[in-house]
Amino acid sequence: MPSSEVLVELGPRSYRIQIRPGLLNDLDDKVRIFDFGQLFLVSDRRVYDLFGRRLISGSGLDAVPVLIPEGEQYKRLQTLDTIYSALIRAGADRTSAILALGGGVVGDIAGFAAATFMRGIPFVQIPTTLLAQVDSSVGGKTGVNHPLGKNLIGAFHQPVAVFADTETLTTLAEREFQSGLYEVIKTGLIRDGAFFDMLETNLDSIIRKDVAVLVDVVTRCCQIKAEVVSHDEREGGLRKILNLGHTFGHGLEAATDYRLLTHGEAVAYGMKAAAILSSRLGLLDKESVKRIVDCLHRVADLPAIDHVSFSSVREAMRRDKKVRRGRETLVLLRAVGAAEIVEAPEEGLLREVWEAATAPPAR
Amino acid sequence: MPSSEVLVELGPRSYRIQIRPGLLNDLDDKVRIFDFGQLFLVSDRRVYDLFGRRLISGSGLDAVPVLIPEGEQYKRLQTLDTIYSALIRAGADRTSAILALGGGVVGDIAGFAAATFMRGIPFVQIPTTLLAQVDSSVGGKTGVNHPLGKNLIGAFHQPVAVFADTETLTTLAEREFQSGLYEVIKTGLIRDGAFFDMLETNLDSIIRKDVAVLVDVVTRCCQIKAEVVSHDEREGGLRKILNLGHTFGHGLEAATDYRLLTHGEAVAYGMKAAAILSSRLGLLDKESVKRIVDCLHRVADLPAIDHVSFSSVREAMRRDKKVRRGRETLVLLRAVGAAEIVEAPEEGLLREVWEAATAPPAR
Repeated sequence: MPSSEVLVELGPRSYRIQIRPGLLNDLDDKVRIFDFGQLFLVSDRRVYDLFGRRLISGSGLDAVPVLIPEGEQYKRLQTLDTIYSALIRAGADRTSAILALGGGVVGDIAGFAAATFMRGIPFVQIPTTLLAQVDSSVGGKTGVNHPLGKNLIGAFHQPVAVFADTETLTTLAEREFQSGLYEVIKTGLIRDGAFFDMLETNLDSIIRKDVAVLVDVVTRCCQIKAEVVSHDEREGGLRKILNLGHTFGHGLEAATDYRLLTHGEAVAYGMKAAAILSSRLGLLDKESVKRIVDCLHRVADLPAIDHVSFSSVREAMRRDKKVRRGRETLVLLRAVGAAEIVEAPEEGLLREVWEAATAPPAR
Repeated sequence: MPSSEVLVELGPRSYRIQIRPGLLNDLDDKVRIFDFGQLFLVSDRRVYDLFGRRLISGSGLDAVPVLIPEGEQYKRLQTLDTIYSALIRAGADRTSAILALGGGVVGDIAGFAAATFMRGIPFVQIPTTLLAQVDSSVGGKTGVNHPLGKNLIGAFHQPVAVFADTETLTTLAEREFQSGLYEVIKTGLIRDGAFFDMLETNLDSIIRKDVAVLVDVVTRCCQIKAEVVSHDEREGGLRKILNLGHTFGHGLEAATDYRLLTHGEAVAYGMKAAAILSSRLGLLDKESVKRIVDCLHRVADLPAIDHVSFSSVREAMRRDKKVRRGRETLVLLRAVGAAEIVEAPEEGLLREVWEAATAPPAR
């Protein structure tokens, strides 16, 4: 079986990401090494039914299950309270640990609960979606949404380990898998042209969820993310490049009420916009723009958004927490595999680019 | 005017505590040095009426007031939401800063809001009670209570500065001032015998709120706390000595529903118990026990608690977050000015000590 390990170097907060199909079967042993006190397995009902119950009753993992409602709309303060209460009722103390089993939402909430329970207890990420395995489970960003904006409440709190079982990806709905795939493409685009080449070549086997290729893909994404996060744990500089497509993407998600598009689909539109804008500003050649757009379109047809007004997206972008003191920056590309932070250009150009990026593709 | 400055050395998170009567009059200049973005002045209505309004309309401090309800019972998740909403509505970003004006409750909540808004924005402590000036505003412990236990939700988040205006102490109710004074005595007991001597000598002028003596007292307490916190920011070892009297004290507060006693009064009972237990275990001589008990009694008559059962206090102690994996430790004294962490002794002795410590004083 293909397997791999990636080290996230962060001094005393360093940790390993282990990636392997079938890894969940050995989770009990892997967790035992850490000598935690009481364990709490935080998950949602669906993921718990798929994998969690088996961990506890099958593999003998001695953990208290804590189930939270499924979905982004429950990523909020009230859900945290469910977790805190369960921990306190079961007598958790500072040696207790949280195991976060699920996608990005579970990881973000459970991680934030761990960051803030008794001022911080250890937690382990066990991501079960592609998006979580390649992106959100690594790097220590945790948090919840506020009714007035996404991810506005949170903390940096690194996990003590990440265990990614790529077999869990075979249970994902197509659209959820595709959503993660856009983040995979993003990772190549910002930092590794050769990885982007590999993705272009192997996209069909990836979409078929070929086990061996998936381990490679998750591994390379984790390596790149680990490298970026090691240089800049708290997003002072380099880490910003991970936001390629996200400024436009977040604006689009907010302007469509988080209903029309998955996060990955919104980021895909954002990456198209970033590629086109990069070219208009003379940073990126036209051939690369075409490669990027083609690759994104091969993943799936993106939901049409030509009815969404530019001004509503633009307004939501301005509210995004990435804007500092009015100085707005964007992540653009100067090559496939090389990102650059630039100041946002004038409005007319942004609007033009947005219209080009969101026009339905010619058939 | 007497004034002083204490440095809390924590590498990149180091900061200064400035202590001076009348300091609030220059707060605007002092805050301006930091070049923050938008400012938010978090306070409760009473403290805002006493000092906050004057800061904004009188001294021209350009800050958005954010008022939270007064009292420990509002130190909870829902109150955080009030702060988050105010920040978001006013367009706060990562350069914004929170100024926490008030006692320990305001500082804890506002600090935790700063720790978790956009994964951490800067905050300044402006403590207006003795307890907050000598203890809670220094060291970066922030958080809120959970219905099932005090301070169970929180984060370590250091302020970027602490401004203590000792003039604000003259507005305190006697009992609130006394409550802080018990923490002052604690600070001497754990680390500085000469400071305890000074307190014994000057207790009458302190109780009269003599301005010059108060600056000295607040300064020495901040120096000692800064020293302890610099050695052990996250309470891995040394910092535990700050909990002298707090294990018993927290148990007593919980067992009496946080209504009968102030925090300081509960800690005073806890310190009596710690002194007596230290002597029973042969750590501390009887003369020192007498000095400690006498000094505590000179501050004020403690509310009688001889109707509170030992077992209810003991049970609450066991739920306290300082207990780890069943191994329970206590902070005791081997001299006036020298603390020591020891394992909790057998129950019979604890009960005896508790009864001796809580018996009404002979007149």
